[in-house]
Amino acid sequence: MPYGELELIREIRRKSLRNSEFIRFGIGDDAAVLRPRKGEDLVVTTDFSLEDVHFADFHPPFAAGYRCLARGLSDVAAMGGRPLAAFLSLALSPRWAQDRTKTREFLRGLHAVADQFGVVLAGGDTAGAPGKHTVADIIVVGAVPRGKALLRSGARPGDAIYVTGRLGGAAAEFEALRTDPKAFRKVKPDGMHPHLFPQPRIAVGHRLLKLASSCMDVSDGLSTDLLHLCEASGVGASLHADVIPLAPHSTLDQALNGGEDYELLFTSRRSVPRRINGIEITKIGIVTEGKNVSLLQKGRERRLRRGGWQHLTQENR
Amino acid sequence: MPYGELELIREIRRKSLRNSEFIRFGIGDDAAVLRPRKGEDLVVTTDFSLEDVHFADFHPPFAAGYRCLARGLSDVAAMGGRPLAAFLSLALSPRWAQDRTKTREFLRGLHAVADQFGVVLAGGDTAGAPGKHTVADIIVVGAVPRGKALLRSGARPGDAIYVTGRLGGAAAEFEALRTDPKAFRKVKPDGMHPHLFPQPRIAVGHRLLKLASSCMDVSDGLSTDLLHLCEASGVGASLHADVIPLAPHSTLDQALNGGEDYELLFTSRRSVPRRINGIEITKIGIVTEGKNVSLLQKGRERRLRRGGWQHLTQENR
Repeated sequence: MPYGELELIREIRRKSLRNSEFIRFGIGDDAAVLRPRKGEDLVVTTDFSLEDVHFADFHPPFAAGYRCLARGLSDVAAMGGRPLAAFLSLALSPRWAQDRTKTREFLRGLHAVADQFGVVLAGGDTAGAPGKHTVADIIVVGAVPRGKALLRSGARPGDAIYVTGRLGGAAAEFEALRTDPKAFRKVKPDGMHPHLFPQPRIAVGHRLLKLASSCMDVSDGLSTDLLHLCEASGVGASLHADVIPLAPHSTLDQALNGGEDYELLFTSRRSVPRRINGIEITKIGIVTEGKNVSLLQKGRERRLRRGGWQHLTQENR
Repeated sequence: MPYGELELIREIRRKSLRNSEFIRFGIGDDAAVLRPRKGEDLVVTTDFSLEDVHFADFHPPFAAGYRCLARGLSDVAAMGGRPLAAFLSLALSPRWAQDRTKTREFLRGLHAVADQFGVVLAGGDTAGAPGKHTVADIIVVGAVPRGKALLRSGARPGDAIYVTGRLGGAAAEFEALRTDPKAFRKVKPDGMHPHLFPQPRIAVGHRLLKLASSCMDVSDGLSTDLLHLCEASGVGASLHADVIPLAPHSTLDQALNGGEDYELLFTSRRSVPRRINGIEITKIGIVTEGKNVSLLQKGRERRLRRGGWQHLTQENR
């Protein structure tokens, strides 16, 4: 039986707590009412999860819902923020509206990551999708100490470049998933599945407030993202290919250009521990003067090229 | 020539100011950084604008963009809020990505209403749409004096029920537009076109902070919306059909069930002026005990039925 809109809202709302210290009023009015704490700035990010763009038929809907919110949380982590509230705009395709299991699993995945990180679903919008594709847009609101948000623009020549965790794993897992979706049916968010269940580095981001000069998350691919960071900071960089921490079964190309690892890329000239909250931290290069961003591999230096995903052109460059 | 994603972001960003008192950092990082004022709560709302659901081929793209943001602003008005920042998630259909005029006009309409109400576009997301339909989701963040947000739940028996402006005009204009789109090509946001250019009642909403016991905007239709308000407040109501202020060329049915007028529906037991900021205010009924919501018409009383739009079931009930 297909969903009615009010029923869908009830389903979304079911697990949404109301009236926390921060969320004075959640789902159920024209807008949510949030009460920021004194001395804190808010960070706000929005991320699409579009069927056949960000997730496909071979994704378990639970994972699609999990990724939907996890990606937004990763943006908050990259700002050094503490996530507080999420808003979900969800337009169901006719197929999803008919098949309640898909929608329920999607929401269950979304609620799972919300619970894991103490985020409350505080509002959103619902609709029937105009075409064949389910459309979701997630908004995450987080808090950060006033004036302390980690920006992309703070890198200075001489800073070391670091990355959390391992790279390329999401691309490798994506390939494996596409080849044999059945093998991934029972996979769980255990931190070992970077594509299906990316782990936003919230705790690390918080620690980086006192350590990093700049920070962003690795969403488009290390190559593209490092170029963005350098552009925002007006600096160059020298990236050492041989020390980039590769995830199991992944290649350097996947680490550089695969994207969606949702690790943190940051710069610092302070003493950075090798692990923060149990997550490996690896030094992968150095910030330089000028605008050149180069890749050093086996003693050879070449210009780093954007290899990540660009929407609309629909291709990996 | 089709858009690339970076180019689209530049186009969106072009007119977006940065670093206001409230918006410490807008477009260009992993998230926007907002600095709430002491003594204020924030209100947050999200609204889809989906091609063939919320706008169609017969809508000038300028109007589609205008409505996209105006609808979000109306939610902020309904909370008594002052809108500050907007976030746009925009996925272009192949046709919109090819035809830059459509996208530019959509953004021009959106920027027009942003300028009109002093709202800054502070972030969002971009993508290629998976199907044939352009997909937009607008998020609006506003501020309201701490603890003073106008909720739907504050109506008490004995309060009078009011509405701003006139109702049914959006439905009437929609019908006319669908019949003869060419006649509307040169129409402008002059306050006389409730469907194409709804005017969010921001200034009225602000004044209602000191007058109203409850408030919401008329988006689904007066019948549905009044029932929502009564349910949230745990009250009944008696609505006087003969005094509902009809827009020119519109019927009582359009006023009750047409929706999308984006006027404010509110309750008060105080003395309410007949005009607020130049906008007519009309008393249309009274809040009652119990749960019955009735419509009084020419001396006869009947039960008010939901007549507004419900998504997913895809029908007017």
